[in-house]
Amino acid sequence: METRISLRFLLLFLSIALVLLFTWVHLPYAPPNTTELLDCTTNSPWCTSKNRFQSKLTNLLKKPPKPTRHHNHASDTPHHPLDPLTIQEVNEVRSILSSHALFKSSAYALHSIDLEEPEKPLVLKWKKGDPLFPRKASVVARVDGKSHVLTIDLSTRQVTVQETGSHTGYPTMTMEDMTAATLAPLANAEFNRTIIQRGIDLKDLACLPISSGWYGKSEENRRLIKIQCYSMKDTANFYMRPIEGLTVLLDLDTKQVLEIFDKGKSIPIPKAANTDYRYSAQEFHQVMNKLNPISIEQPKGPSFTIEDEHLVKWANWEFHVKPDARAGMIISRAKFQDPDTGELRNVMYKGFTSELFVPYMDPTDDWYFKTYMDAGEYGFGLQAMPLDPLNDCPRNAYYMDGVFVAADGTPYVRSNMICVFESYAGDIGWRHSESPITELEIREARPKVTLVVRMVASVANYDYIVDWEFQTDGLIRAKVGLSGILMVKGTTYDHINQIPKEENQYGTLLSENVIGVIHDHYIIFYLDMDVDGSDNSFVKVDIKKEQTSPDESPRKSYLKAIRNVAKTEKDAQIKLKLYEPSEFHVINPSKKTRVGNPVGYKVVPGGTAASLLDLEDPPQKRGAFTNNQIWVTPYNRSEQWAGGLFVYQSHGEDTLATWSDRDRPIENKDIVLWYTLGFHHIPCQEDFPVMPTVSSSFDLKPVNFFESNPILRIPPNVEKDLPVCEAAASV
Amino acid sequence: METRISLRFLLLFLSIALVLLFTWVHLPYAPPNTTELLDCTTNSPWCTSKNRFQSKLTNLLKKPPKPTRHHNHASDTPHHPLDPLTIQEVNEVRSILSSHALFKSSAYALHSIDLEEPEKPLVLKWKKGDPLFPRKASVVARVDGKSHVLTIDLSTRQVTVQETGSHTGYPTMTMEDMTAATLAPLANAEFNRTIIQRGIDLKDLACLPISSGWYGKSEENRRLIKIQCYSMKDTANFYMRPIEGLTVLLDLDTKQVLEIFDKGKSIPIPKAANTDYRYSAQEFHQVMNKLNPISIEQPKGPSFTIEDEHLVKWANWEFHVKPDARAGMIISRAKFQDPDTGELRNVMYKGFTSELFVPYMDPTDDWYFKTYMDAGEYGFGLQAMPLDPLNDCPRNAYYMDGVFVAADGTPYVRSNMICVFESYAGDIGWRHSESPITELEIREARPKVTLVVRMVASVANYDYIVDWEFQTDGLIRAKVGLSGILMVKGTTYDHINQIPKEENQYGTLLSENVIGVIHDHYIIFYLDMDVDGSDNSFVKVDIKKEQTSPDESPRKSYLKAIRNVAKTEKDAQIKLKLYEPSEFHVINPSKKTRVGNPVGYKVVPGGTAASLLDLEDPPQKRGAFTNNQIWVTPYNRSEQWAGGLFVYQSHGEDTLATWSDRDRPIENKDIVLWYTLGFHHIPCQEDFPVMPTVSSSFDLKPVNFFESNPILRIPPNVEKDLPVCEAAASV
Repeated sequence: METRISLRFLLLFLSIALVLLFTWVHLPYAPPNTTELLDCTTNSPWCTSKNRFQSKLTNLLKKPPKPTRHHNHASDTPHHPLDPLTIQEVNEVRSILSSHALFKSSAYALHSIDLEEPEKPLVLKWKKGDPLFPRKASVVARVDGKSHVLTIDLSTRQVTVQETGSHTGYPTMTMEDMTAATLAPLANAEFNRTIIQRGIDLKDLACLPISSGWYGKSEENRRLIKIQCYSMKDTANFYMRPIEGLTVLLDLDTKQVLEIFDKGKSIPIPKAANTDYRYSAQEFHQVMNKLNPISIEQPKGPSFTIEDEHLVKWANWEFHVKPDARAGMIISRAKFQDPDTGELRNVMYKGFTSELFVPYMDPTDDWYFKTYMDAGEYGFGLQAMPLDPLNDCPRNAYYMDGVFVAADGTPYVRSNMICVFESYAGDIGWRHSESPITELEIREARPKVTLVVRMVASVANYDYIVDWEFQTDGLIRAKVGLSGILMVKGTTYDHINQIPKEENQYGTLLSENVIGVIHDHYIIFYLDMDVDGSDNSFVKVDIKKEQTSPDESPRKSYLKAIRNVAKTEKDAQIKLKLYEPSEFHVINPSKKTRVGNPVGYKVVPGGTAASLLDLEDPPQKRGAFTNNQIWVTPYNRSEQWAGGLFVYQSHGEDTLATWSDRDRPIENKDIVLWYTLGFHHIPCQEDFPVMPTVSSSFDLKPVNFFESNPILRIPPNVEKDLPVCEAAASV
Repeated sequence: METRISLRFLLLFLSIALVLLFTWVHLPYAPPNTTELLDCTTNSPWCTSKNRFQSKLTNLLKKPPKPTRHHNHASDTPHHPLDPLTIQEVNEVRSILSSHALFKSSAYALHSIDLEEPEKPLVLKWKKGDPLFPRKASVVARVDGKSHVLTIDLSTRQVTVQETGSHTGYPTMTMEDMTAATLAPLANAEFNRTIIQRGIDLKDLACLPISSGWYGKSEENRRLIKIQCYSMKDTANFYMRPIEGLTVLLDLDTKQVLEIFDKGKSIPIPKAANTDYRYSAQEFHQVMNKLNPISIEQPKGPSFTIEDEHLVKWANWEFHVKPDARAGMIISRAKFQDPDTGELRNVMYKGFTSELFVPYMDPTDDWYFKTYMDAGEYGFGLQAMPLDPLNDCPRNAYYMDGVFVAADGTPYVRSNMICVFESYAGDIGWRHSESPITELEIREARPKVTLVVRMVASVANYDYIVDWEFQTDGLIRAKVGLSGILMVKGTTYDHINQIPKEENQYGTLLSENVIGVIHDHYIIFYLDMDVDGSDNSFVKVDIKKEQTSPDESPRKSYLKAIRNVAKTEKDAQIKLKLYEPSEFHVINPSKKTRVGNPVGYKVVPGGTAASLLDLEDPPQKRGAFTNNQIWVTPYNRSEQWAGGLFVYQSHGEDTLATWSDRDRPIENKDIVLWYTLGFHHIPCQEDFPVMPTVSSSFDLKPVNFFESNPILRIPPNVEKDLPVCEAAASV
């Protein structure tokens, strides 16, 4: 037994050494064989996650692989100015960079290689059939401890090094950063000792890289990360088995252990029983009423088409979708064909999840820093795993792959990262029956069918389901569902009645020795609305109580709509208020309907939450985009990431809040609307060991954009059009 | 032409005389032949609305009738203590009443005949197989201008006349009240003259009965109603063609015209063009991309069963559903089978839409009184029309009929009033993928299938879609969708630039001469929660910012959950606040989970709106249940209707607000939770001529009700279980 442990130890040590080598030694560029590149198992550990612990897990699911569309991305070519870089283009970028002076240095890592989108006016003018503009790449690189942003012109092979300003913060971590960080503590004898002292086999160790935020001087001028570990003995759900009170502070560049905080030895590791959520791990001692198969069926196929891999056409909608390593997915050039004129009208130039902010509400040593900004720190797209057909998305879904880039520039394919499907839930698009009062025999109802574009980012424990849902009536719903696994805290208590009343647990006791810590989630959407053109205004339509004058009316009061056009950014810093309600319109002041209303779209909040943290609290400064629920900024190419371009360890001096405080004019200008969805989460036992999905959404809704209801001409369902189905033969 | 008009006039006059006769002359009781009774065309004008204008409408839809389940209700017998009165029982009630002294009077109308539910403790004890308790009916009758509430014991034939107290207000109108009121003005020569003067053919007239609210002394001591009319020339959508400025004040008991307000002769009647929303009336000059057929398919059939017409069993849920003339539908005895113990656990004893409040925001003469309370004034269930299969509800829906009662006590069947169906929209119940960081090969996702119980009330122009949606994880979502047609105002303007800036239009110019008037919608739900038993407590879990002390933490602040158990009703008068958030739990203080959390359900608000009207404004006094979003009262049989039992013209002295101000103890008692959903509606052109559905919802969600996630054992979808479908042969 002893020798087996030693052997494993040696193996682990060797693999750490290898990873360090891989990350830190500059591998001279040699254009690899493309097909080899795409072979995930040999070249890129990130496209299909290899499971170093797999053999050690009992009960691993043995599902046959789901049918997926196999597409050879090696020969992809761009068709649209906004199409992401192809594998060939990424390889060209690598080739160009390999001969650039900056990369002659001994150590570098490429944190991102993305399309640098052409200037907006160019894209707006471009039509299918036009030649593409010169393709450019935007590269974020760390060279010798410095961050650089470069623009590479693929046609001229010219490299421009951009001024990144004097802002604090580091680029989004690479996958290599994260993986190497989780392995690094194992190279530290003290760390290993304390693990073994706690009775944990090193082979059962699972560690997470936790962005450390920023809390003052001692944490500046070097990339830091904190590592916390879990036991995966007897469960795939190691998250429920924290090694509480053990935090390793690591230098993310050198992977050196700087400090080990080790105070939780008295806290037991929660038991593994009932933590595994996998179907294969369930015991079926109680029979649940099984549901008969149910499916959204379209025997004539889906009604959408996808041209050139990215351009979606459905009903009256047309838009461009692409995966993005940081944002997850980007919707561009959303246009709606007017049902009256046939004209393809602009609605939104670009929309995406710009940043997340997930502060945990525990100020103690091992928890205070957990204030994740998942897009800028971890890459919301990098963490979007392949979707599970039939379960993550229904039948008839179209799956789109992402092409991402390893730290050395090697492109890899993340398959099935986005799905596109039509949804019908049995809901009603519009209806009217005449009541017996009027005695007209009328019963008109229309089924509501929508188009969903979905991605799920699994940022370690949490799963964020992001849906863009397009309706035939012109409405766009952006919905975020939260599922996955809680980040829990170990405790000595196994029953609430043991807890002294004055002792704050910072959460809920979910199971013996497990506390679900209270936290918030904020997701901010960048919404570059172009309502019938780029120059728009933001109008706050206040709904205000008016008192009638004494003899005016038997009524004492009524509500009045008062339109206020926002002149500058500060006019559009909006805190939602139930008792001082408003509508929030983005209008085109130079385009009117027949009777004279300006055409517009409004943002309609749904259920949400607001950050209550102290404005001077370091995490709140960094997540200052949550200071308001709505903001409007003038369009500025460089202002896309609400937490700043370099979020990691930033001090919060380059955020949406800072930009907006410049108070620039926004009336009748190309403007960007920002909306933040929020959730307060006090965990409950139902969240253990995996959380049923909780969702919230907001709508972008036409408001006097059409002359009238645009879906009058949708036909009702009739029996003869519907599919004829049989139960599957095999059942 | 002249003679034809005169003839029509004569015909109309005769029919009015007949209706008046029908309503006012007491028809001596003669038990009718039951099958005849159920023949809608001959006996009950309300079960299938006869169309007195039908032949005059061009373009009437000529759809073949949809397939519906034909059920002979004549032989229905009750099986459950909460089953509604059967036709036979209603007839028994009529027979008992016919020999009662009260009804020897010359004039009476029966405003409702409903089951008087057995006492709650009896129902709680009852089990299938037990004999039913003596069946009782509760009858609301108007006799000689007085309102009475009677209880009739069907076994003993005993009639008890209840004390109704000294409160103001009248019972819900009968359908006969409403229909007669709309015809009554035609008996008035002055009214007819002004109609003809406006160039409107009397045959094109459509009039609506508008509850007058209550605005002071002059309106007391008699039942009043206001009538406004529209032109239905060239459109089925007469609502878009108001005869503005013409209001008839009517005595609802005598049907006498009391006053005609006639000031709008200068306001043109808006044109009919583009107002008809029926599919048959559409012009297809622009082709919309047609969608392929899409359907929720279950080739092995739905997974729910309905026992004895009313008891629904699906997945782990069991509950009782019944139509109700006032509430629309009532969900009772909702229980969830615990997936761990198999125990059938109580969740909610009774839930329904208790009242609505729809104030329009125009204080001028013809509009100020429009402050509808649709359940208590019109009967939310009475206005629920037959659903349109395949369009109002998907395939595989089960349709439930309502048995209602005409003013003379004749029972009639409202077919297809409620539908029950399983929904799958492609959503995810829960999921988790492991990210490459942890390198575990896990991808677990579960499709989310729900059960929907739906009703749609068409209260004249508006359609309220009410959904109770049950999830496998124990969550209940109550959702209200608004569709149908706006109540609009005529105006002289046909373009916004004609409107003087200082002139308030109280709404939006939607089309030439048509203003969509601003209004609110409030729907209050009665939610008698019985979480694992009747004695529950209401806990407000406040989420509060805590400042850390100077050396406590690098964090300055965090959020803390502070539990406050409501002792009395005033502790539970809740106004929602984004910046002072709380969770709202109904817990069972004597039942704890394994680790000691009290079992509970929480009400989770979604997007909503609050009434901003002056608290002393007469409509706000009557709709005072909107003064807070959440209330909790001790269970009291007589407190079910949030606007009072007799809402019509009431002064608002017997509402939820009054009850709650008694400030009774509510801790560890049988309590009722009340939640109000709200909408502000500033109309926009998309709402013309019929509105795309706008929805809002709230959730009742288990919170430490289960020991852990109750849907771990739901299997994932696999291809071989899904249906095999073909396009319909006929297409």
